[in-house]
Amino acid sequence: MMDFTEELSQTAKEADQVILGKLPAISGLQKSVLEAMDYAVAAGGKRIRPVMIRKAYEMFAGEEMRSMRPVMESFMAAMEMIHTFSLCHDDLPCMDNDRYRRGREAVWYRYGEDMGTLTGDALALYAFECIGKAYKSSPEASGERVLRAMHILAETSGVNGMLGGQVVDVEMTGGRLNEEQLSFIYRLKTGALLKGSLMIGAVLGGADDAAVSRIGEIGEKIGVAFQIQDDILDETSTDEELGKPVHSDALNQKTTYVTIHGLEASRAEVVRLSREAMEALEGFDGEEINGEAREFLKKLTEMLIHRRK
Amino acid sequence: MMDFTEELSQTAKEADQVILGKLPAISGLQKSVLEAMDYAVAAGGKRIRPVMIRKAYEMFAGEEMRSMRPVMESFMAAMEMIHTFSLCHDDLPCMDNDRYRRGREAVWYRYGEDMGTLTGDALALYAFECIGKAYKSSPEASGERVLRAMHILAETSGVNGMLGGQVVDVEMTGGRLNEEQLSFIYRLKTGALLKGSLMIGAVLGGADDAAVSRIGEIGEKIGVAFQIQDDILDETSTDEELGKPVHSDALNQKTTYVTIHGLEASRAEVVRLSREAMEALEGFDGEEINGEAREFLKKLTEMLIHRRK
Repeated sequence: MMDFTEELSQTAKEADQVILGKLPAISGLQKSVLEAMDYAVAAGGKRIRPVMIRKAYEMFAGEEMRSMRPVMESFMAAMEMIHTFSLCHDDLPCMDNDRYRRGREAVWYRYGEDMGTLTGDALALYAFECIGKAYKSSPEASGERVLRAMHILAETSGVNGMLGGQVVDVEMTGGRLNEEQLSFIYRLKTGALLKGSLMIGAVLGGADDAAVSRIGEIGEKIGVAFQIQDDILDETSTDEELGKPVHSDALNQKTTYVTIHGLEASRAEVVRLSREAMEALEGFDGEEINGEAREFLKKLTEMLIHRRK
Repeated sequence: MMDFTEELSQTAKEADQVILGKLPAISGLQKSVLEAMDYAVAAGGKRIRPVMIRKAYEMFAGEEMRSMRPVMESFMAAMEMIHTFSLCHDDLPCMDNDRYRRGREAVWYRYGEDMGTLTGDALALYAFECIGKAYKSSPEASGERVLRAMHILAETSGVNGMLGGQVVDVEMTGGRLNEEQLSFIYRLKTGALLKGSLMIGAVLGGADDAAVSRIGEIGEKIGVAFQIQDDILDETSTDEELGKPVHSDALNQKTTYVTIHGLEASRAEVVRLSREAMEALEGFDGEEINGEAREFLKKLTEMLIHRRK
């Protein structure tokens, strides 16, 4: 049997193929933006969100659900486009002013600030175009499910999701955050797309409303726990172990869960959130649930939360 | 009988109500972005695109089509949000660097460059959230039509639409354009959303594929003619008549249809395009077509193209 790290890396590679295959071909007078979109998305990352969509889909979709698979794959790509759009704009000079991301030049630094802005815009819009295209070529897919999933994508990425969290984060930069603000940012900026990913997979797989909202809560808990673990590692790890400079939060006088609650309480919160997420995943039972997909999501949760880097 | 100017201004006022009513309420920790969205959209403009959606819808929707009306209104709002998002980003320092728009401060100039970027993003995402919400509360609406219309919105605003045109425009700024590049920019940057608006209205109203693509071509022709008329007025009008400084294209050494083809040929092209658009509108005949809505669109075309300012 493959160990989980291998299995995850295999699944991420498959997601890579799916995502890159959905990007528009690089041709036409507007070639430059198509190339920049490709550059931004190909930069990679762990593809956690698309993997979550797929596994949540498999958890609920029975054998008869084959007809939704192409649409589901388009949502994997759409979600990663939305995630990449947000990174693209986060790096801009007027936002975090980061010239590099994952060891490569940021999109704006490579292609210019105007193109950095437009490439992010293009990715956000293409996410929805991709969904429209998928439905057009899968007329047997359930339009109602596609629309519900589209709505979740827009909702969890917009003002009541990721972007809302980003706005508060940007506004508070340099100042002290109170507990309410910090938890809002963690829940939305980090948690919303993970929540959305699990919900979209579940909706497309045919889960009922109660199951969709339960799995959404799981995603949010994972997202918040992931973020707190980030804060803990920044405080306790070494540069070598983490693969990036530690103590950056302290240097930037950033308010984090650790600076508000201390290390011990932060560790306890990660344990509490991950335990709740695991138990909630266990809670899905019965014949309709694909046990392997659920097992995968449990291991993924464990890995994301207990990682050392 | 009301004259057309009055009728148009009444219809635009109704569109205003619809659009502003669909914006998210201004509350919560991310209040600032919600306020900026409202500021950007409330700045106004002629609401041409939403009006076109409504009239194309009315042209095809029979009496039995009442059930699609709330969804259609959400598309009116979504289209205007997409249009406003593009203006918001166009004004940014890294793009056109415009501090004012329609006599008011541009969003970035009022709220900061980071918020200018995020407000545009928020409007683009909320357009799709708005569509998802509308469908959710209109379960009797046809999901298939909503998805087709959503696809058209994404397609005509993205890399193969407005944004693609904007990319070429930005890249060519300062340089000379050839005819192919100029026509690409006019067709996409100006024409795509007008095309999309008429198509969305027609799809939601139940037009068949052939009618949808015919009305799309009409929208594109109107958009291109509108843009050429802009170039002509910049060359031939006076500051007083136009309400803004004329000869700005010549001052900025901008390539326009007039600089390539001369005034006479430009006027002939506007006449040709508008005649084709009018004839194509006439071409929709039969009992299913609402004649009043078609008459409105014909007058709107005439007004947009033959305006003196």
